[in-house]
Amino acid sequence: MRIENDALGKREIKNELYYGIQTLRAKENFSVSGKTIFDIPYFVESIVQIKKAAALANHQIGALDNSVCKAICQAADDVLTQPDRQDFIIDIYHGGGGTSANMNVNEVLANRANEILTGSKGYDNVHPNTHVNMGQSTNDVIPAAMKMAVYHSLFQLCQALQHCITSLEKKEAEFNEIVKLGRTCFQDALPITLGQQFSGYRNAFVRMLKDVQQAQLLCLELPLSATAVGTEFGTFPGYKEWVYRTLEETTSIQWRAEKNLFDGLQNADLWLKISATLKAVALNLHKLAGDLRLMSSGPRAGLGEITLPAVQPGSSIMPGKVNPVVPEMAMQVYFRVLGNDVAISRACEGELDLNVWESLILNCTTESCNLLTSCIPLLMEKCVDGIIANKEKCLTDAEQSLALSTVIATLFDYQTASRLAKQAEAESKTIKQVVIENKLMSKSEAETYLDPLMMTSPHRFNQLFSKKRSTKDGH
Amino acid sequence: MRIENDALGKREIKNELYYGIQTLRAKENFSVSGKTIFDIPYFVESIVQIKKAAALANHQIGALDNSVCKAICQAADDVLTQPDRQDFIIDIYHGGGGTSANMNVNEVLANRANEILTGSKGYDNVHPNTHVNMGQSTNDVIPAAMKMAVYHSLFQLCQALQHCITSLEKKEAEFNEIVKLGRTCFQDALPITLGQQFSGYRNAFVRMLKDVQQAQLLCLELPLSATAVGTEFGTFPGYKEWVYRTLEETTSIQWRAEKNLFDGLQNADLWLKISATLKAVALNLHKLAGDLRLMSSGPRAGLGEITLPAVQPGSSIMPGKVNPVVPEMAMQVYFRVLGNDVAISRACEGELDLNVWESLILNCTTESCNLLTSCIPLLMEKCVDGIIANKEKCLTDAEQSLALSTVIATLFDYQTASRLAKQAEAESKTIKQVVIENKLMSKSEAETYLDPLMMTSPHRFNQLFSKKRSTKDGH
Amino acid sequence: MRIENDALGKREIKNELYYGIQTLRAKENFSVSGKTIFDIPYFVESIVQIKKAAALANHQIGALDNSVCKAICQAADDVLTQPDRQDFIIDIYHGGGGTSANMNVNEVLANRANEILTGSKGYDNVHPNTHVNMGQSTNDVIPAAMKMAVYHSLFQLCQALQHCITSLEKKEAEFNEIVKLGRTCFQDALPITLGQQFSGYRNAFVRMLKDVQQAQLLCLELPLSATAVGTEFGTFPGYKEWVYRTLEETTSIQWRAEKNLFDGLQNADLWLKISATLKAVALNLHKLAGDLRLMSSGPRAGLGEITLPAVQPGSSIMPGKVNPVVPEMAMQVYFRVLGNDVAISRACEGELDLNVWESLILNCTTESCNLLTSCIPLLMEKCVDGIIANKEKCLTDAEQSLALSTVIATLFDYQTASRLAKQAEAESKTIKQVVIENKLMSKSEAETYLDPLMMTSPHRFNQLFSKKRSTKDGH
Amino acid sequence: MRIENDALGKREIKNELYYGIQTLRAKENFSVSGKTIFDIPYFVESIVQIKKAAALANHQIGALDNSVCKAICQAADDVLTQPDRQDFIIDIYHGGGGTSANMNVNEVLANRANEILTGSKGYDNVHPNTHVNMGQSTNDVIPAAMKMAVYHSLFQLCQALQHCITSLEKKEAEFNEIVKLGRTCFQDALPITLGQQFSGYRNAFVRMLKDVQQAQLLCLELPLSATAVGTEFGTFPGYKEWVYRTLEETTSIQWRAEKNLFDGLQNADLWLKISATLKAVALNLHKLAGDLRLMSSGPRAGLGEITLPAVQPGSSIMPGKVNPVVPEMAMQVYFRVLGNDVAISRACEGELDLNVWESLILNCTTESCNLLTSCIPLLMEKCVDGIIANKEKCLTDAEQSLALSTVIATLFDYQTASRLAKQAEAESKTIKQVVIENKLMSKSEAETYLDPLMMTSPHRFNQLFSKKRSTKDGH
Repeated sequence: MRIENDALGKREIKNELYYGIQTLRAKENFSVSGKTIFDIPYFVESIVQIKKAAALANHQIGALDNSVCKAICQAADDVLTQPDRQDFIIDIYHGGGGTSANMNVNEVLANRANEILTGSKGYDNVHPNTHVNMGQSTNDVIPAAMKMAVYHSLFQLCQALQHCITSLEKKEAEFNEIVKLGRTCFQDALPITLGQQFSGYRNAFVRMLKDVQQAQLLCLELPLSATAVGTEFGTFPGYKEWVYRTLEETTSIQWRAEKNLFDGLQNADLWLKISATLKAVALNLHKLAGDLRLMSSGPRAGLGEITLPAVQPGSSIMPGKVNPVVPEMAMQVYFRVLGNDVAISRACEGELDLNVWESLILNCTTESCNLLTSCIPLLMEKCVDGIIANKEKCLTDAEQSLALSTVIATLFDYQTASRLAKQAEAESKTIKQVVIENKLMSKSEAETYLDPLMMTSPHRFNQLFSKKRSTKDGH
Repeated sequence: MRIENDALGKREIKNELYYGIQTLRAKENFSVSGKTIFDIPYFVESIVQIKKAAALANHQIGALDNSVCKAICQAADDVLTQPDRQDFIIDIYHGGGGTSANMNVNEVLANRANEILTGSKGYDNVHPNTHVNMGQSTNDVIPAAMKMAVYHSLFQLCQALQHCITSLEKKEAEFNEIVKLGRTCFQDALPITLGQQFSGYRNAFVRMLKDVQQAQLLCLELPLSATAVGTEFGTFPGYKEWVYRTLEETTSIQWRAEKNLFDGLQNADLWLKISATLKAVALNLHKLAGDLRLMSSGPRAGLGEITLPAVQPGSSIMPGKVNPVVPEMAMQVYFRVLGNDVAISRACEGELDLNVWESLILNCTTESCNLLTSCIPLLMEKCVDGIIANKEKCLTDAEQSLALSTVIATLFDYQTASRLAKQAEAESKTIKQVVIENKLMSKSEAETYLDPLMMTSPHRFNQLFSKKRSTKDGH
Repeated sequence: MRIENDALGKREIKNELYYGIQTLRAKENFSVSGKTIFDIPYFVESIVQIKKAAALANHQIGALDNSVCKAICQAADDVLTQPDRQDFIIDIYHGGGGTSANMNVNEVLANRANEILTGSKGYDNVHPNTHVNMGQSTNDVIPAAMKMAVYHSLFQLCQALQHCITSLEKKEAEFNEIVKLGRTCFQDALPITLGQQFSGYRNAFVRMLKDVQQAQLLCLELPLSATAVGTEFGTFPGYKEWVYRTLEETTSIQWRAEKNLFDGLQNADLWLKISATLKAVALNLHKLAGDLRLMSSGPRAGLGEITLPAVQPGSSIMPGKVNPVVPEMAMQVYFRVLGNDVAISRACEGELDLNVWESLILNCTTESCNLLTSCIPLLMEKCVDGIIANKEKCLTDAEQSLALSTVIATLFDYQTASRLAKQAEAESKTIKQVVIENKLMSKSEAETYLDPLMMTSPHRFNQLFSKKRSTKDGH
Repeated sequence: MRIENDALGKREIKNELYYGIQTLRAKENFSVSGKTIFDIPYFVESIVQIKKAAALANHQIGALDNSVCKAICQAADDVLTQPDRQDFIIDIYHGGGGTSANMNVNEVLANRANEILTGSKGYDNVHPNTHVNMGQSTNDVIPAAMKMAVYHSLFQLCQALQHCITSLEKKEAEFNEIVKLGRTCFQDALPITLGQQFSGYRNAFVRMLKDVQQAQLLCLELPLSATAVGTEFGTFPGYKEWVYRTLEETTSIQWRAEKNLFDGLQNADLWLKISATLKAVALNLHKLAGDLRLMSSGPRAGLGEITLPAVQPGSSIMPGKVNPVVPEMAMQVYFRVLGNDVAISRACEGELDLNVWESLILNCTTESCNLLTSCIPLLMEKCVDGIIANKEKCLTDAEQSLALSTVIATLFDYQTASRLAKQAEAESKTIKQVVIENKLMSKSEAETYLDPLMMTSPHRFNQLFSKKRSTKDGH
């Protein structure tokens, strides 16, 4: 055991542990969720990157000895190479605006750096606040590290989205000529091809990908060097310029300073924007999953337009039942993201000179992002890639639809079409049948003009109709 | 024009208007929504009731002259009998925790009371603060009036719910023997009767009615006599007892004081609870409306189990289309209630000795309540009452379902059933067909044991199965 | 390795594992969050309790052999005594309405029961569906187990709330005579005692405790015996009665059947209600924590009415700073609960005969509940219990407040009071000073009538004022 | 009275009214809120603009007679010039995805156009569907008109934001040298100038303005010519190109077609994005308003850093009280926007080929936007423009803060600073006093190095500190 001191007194810590007294206190103050800062991908890593860049910058401008700088950098590299869960133990629900997370890293690096310099832990040569935290404050370090962490998580989401787009493109091509009923207000509407429908999904995810990439860019602007309230007090001349330069060098990413550092600390609305982007991704995922669930309903008494791959038996009591379980997983991910958005929105409300709800924001944002990143490829591999279109069912439904009366409205007028639709419904006939019976068209004409597939392409129907119209006008 | 003064100076007001200088200022400070306190049903009325009860109570305990009391009461009765929109003009978005709403009523009653006593408006004989507001503070009057107003609105919702229950009961009885497929995960499941399904809706609304009645009871406890911060400072001895007594007499409702008036002013969580109740009502409405929309989907390529009454043409382009427009209206009411719940939740967060977001809470709560009250009877009259069950379609779907294999699992075992279901699916046969083909049952047995209607009632299937089982055990 | 089969084919499973093929598939289909059903307190345990009760019930009514029943019960007891994380591996985000969770338990119990009977795993003697799941469906088992699990979690929350009430009661008594300024709209208002303020918090948590206990009672009604869609199809005669009887015996809790089982499966609004209750608890926690944060603001340039115990240094850059970190933790717990409420609300929307979003509901509900249960005692022990009132500061603030002019309004009239308040403000004097200067009272009278502590108690001010008033009336 | 017919039958309509039978039916089906499509700024106008552009386009491509086209255009111009509330009566809660709103406009224009052509209303020469709706469907017209309407509303919000930025800039300049305490976690932190704080607000609104302008651009892409399901079926060759060309000419705004029309109809996530932008604006408004409320707290026992203009008396019982009523109005606007965001999010969930919840989305989006547009200028004029800084109080608070110990940490080290802060706190002294007492600095040095204003500017403190440091290093 070793003894550590802080402003409140002294505490014993097991000597093998790298964290220090403030981390220990924080652990006691905040253990409510069991989830720690270590569980947030890239977060501890990003704080450590900042510490390293700050040490290099402070050394560069003459504020930090070479030996101390070197020791901090080596300690940082040790953590980056082999991060240890038992070193970073702050519960994700911690108060104080991230002070505990920042001090946890400061203490681990200081103890490790001292060990490197002297062979034993302690803060004699490298102090957590004076050296590791030099030129920094929790208030600029933590929001900066959050953005860095989320930048990486969003990148992974982009890859998942790319996967999704590729899968949807394949299906779009495959379903190109499968004609089916469109449905609006859940009622039979005009024909559409399954491929067209999938092109809509695909296009939505293409838009989502762009939006997530845009969100990533927002993470590049950091409040580093703002220190406690945005005035940069506590930094040394030249620090601001150098810390961004070194951080870019060590991470190969072009981080830059926010224009107004007061705004940077006061306001957290960036997270609201990022959360809205994640919510939109989840919404489109839910739309796709929900539609798959509807279109595959049945197998006998549902829409039955497609069949999803059976990935597990669907019931403990009904043999033969297969459920759309993977889409349903995705839909529930959406619900969680929806809830996280509300939690994040609330946490974005801060007051005065600093938003101090960052740990909640970080927890919810990365949870939403990572759930999506895990869920999307599963939905593709376990479901979308294996969808089979029930071509016959799709075609039959389309041919029997009363909505084909729209052809009559287009070629003749709305009232005539309305009358035929009513007759078809009353007599349980197809529009084609009543059109022929009413001698509006010959049988062969009716087959041409009421072909659902023709109705799905302007190229096809325009060509056909311009002929018909000129005939009609000739009357 | 007449001149009125307050602590900030003097202002001219048209002499025909009853409101005074503070109301005028508030109108200028807050006109953002166009919706005023007058638009909230029962709200101004409830404040006026409080003013009257307070005047009577203050007179009773010797704090208010008889003539002043009488004049206030008569002014109050005038407003209750013939409330005038142009008198109550405070925008529903007002700051200050309702001071403007309270002062609006104080000023109108004071001006009217003076007019009664002297023939002209003014505050010489009856002052808005000294007399009309005697023993009161905005901080106890407004929350009390809110509860009173919502009490009445909830009562109207109860009547709408009673209407709903009656309509659903009728349909439940009517659809008693219509057997159809149950659906879970949107996949064909075991048979159920349409009446059983409607019994579920009905039972849910019976629960909702109880919950709304419970919420109404919560509104009976008022913070009246708490004055500004809960200490009752500013009331005269005996006021508390008398104001509740007179309020009960004049309104015939048993209002009573909250036990802890500090809690009563500090906390608004009651509204969160009431909003949750309204959200649950809206959720059940959405469930019913959504199910009607699904079950009536088609008319040809959907579930087609029921037909909703056609209340208007469904498309500007597709003749013959009819949409479930009334359920869709109800579903959107739910969305609004959902949003209002979040707004109310946020507004329930207050600080220190008073929650000052009451006007937002009141606006959202009554909006949710009144939308539901209007929407439910429309949904019943324009939709539910006229639903027609498509009996044949329902039965056919039930008979063709692979879920009938559950009978085999029950009578034999899960593996056998699973095998049959697989075969039926592969060969596009019914369970009945493969059961007979596999000689598990004779044709007549199969017809008896695979009758969907039998499967919906424990009474029926238990009787039947106990026979079969004993036979089977006899093997 | 052993081989298991299901309707989709065969899979190899390590022989030491108790779960089976459907569990394995589900693991592959759903691994998105890393959190499994095992991580939800009491959930797996509750499913196991149901399996045991069902086995006993089925045996009782003659549907299950004695040996099979015994083996299932012993397997269940084994799991209850020593649950093993590696047996229950279904990700909490799973589709299919809980089928995987139910089958996971069915398979573990079946394999264990076979092992008991035969020495080796397998389903020959005890089959997961035919025997362990006899008379049950995922659709009644899972919602029932959810309610059972949440019942226990709510019980723990009750204990935390009891702790909270006790702590607040102590402080209420301790702060009984500490007079301070009340604040409304964040502006100086009438005096109040710190004890009165704490009585408000205490009373709110007393109400919360009652509400949570009420929510607990709602969990006692289960849909057990509804099977797949509410018709009870698949149960044997007598099962319903016996399963509740045995479940009560084995758990010592009086579970009972819901009145309408169709409603029971269709609708999930119960969870909305429970979530609203948790949200209200969290709201009150947030109110308390937020008020502590405001009242302890400073130490020099804030309200400074109370001092919170220092539990850790507050800044990495500003020595001597101490932050209200424990209240801030609690406030973030509230934000999460707020988000969970929205996720739960959304998941309560289901369609047709079953709400299938139970796993999301369960995850969010228990997360909210357990965060509160952990957080409340921490807030008490690390913060509330150690609060020190800054008596002098509180008194001075109260004495200097312009709101003391309310005394003048009460004894004289509102206009006189308003004039004095204006003068006091303009000349930076206390109300007492201007009252004396204006000769409304003698110095000694002013000291008596403008004593803030007197103003906090009806008993005190009524006695005093009745004297004054009679004097005044005598003028 | 005149008679009109539709597919469901005939109805009588007062002859002076321009709307027709479908509008009448819709009015009866949907009257739940009292708010109609006429109450949504720019909405009816936008539909009419589309009708006019479509008529011109259809005429251009030879599908519509000149006389009919002219009559439709003149009817459209009549409505644009003098819209009449009694013509557009569809409740904003309507089902059917906007069919009723579209038909309301179709009927009004058809009746008016017939009147123009024939002297009497009716559809003989110009039919609502066949002519006015030619080449269109509700499903492309309504989403297009929504975007057009919101485009205009967002433009107005931009003007309000510009107003806000100008007001904040003035205050920023005015408060440039007012030094005060920064506050983090609501505890005294490092000095900051009031001008710096306002620069943060200003910068946030500059960002908001950019975001709203961005959102406006998103509204330029319309789904026009998609018709019912995205296939363009029902349009005539050339229509798509011409309708955008004419719409641009008649409105002078560069509308263009969405790239993928299937996506355009299926998905509504655009609205989620716009709502998130409005939520961010409201959040920043709430932050500003909330901070003003905190900083102006008192007047005697609060932070008292600024004084807000008194715009109305603050209490019905406490004379002299002035409340931050205008900021509180703004904060409640935020709560409503927060709720609307959740309602909009929910409504963005659609299924299959069309999102049909547009009327709810439109209602909530425009409500949020318009509330902000009204509220922001009020907050500026009634509050921000008149804020007075309490310079003395600000400076005193800053000088007494323990956070000045950060200077010592920067010049010496963290431990020394921590020790001094502790001493200052224990002995109720300023940091300056203990620094002098401890002989770390002379009195004049201390006055230089502990000057709060110096600490707010890198320029100032860097110059000063580099001197000190070199001295120190010289030791």
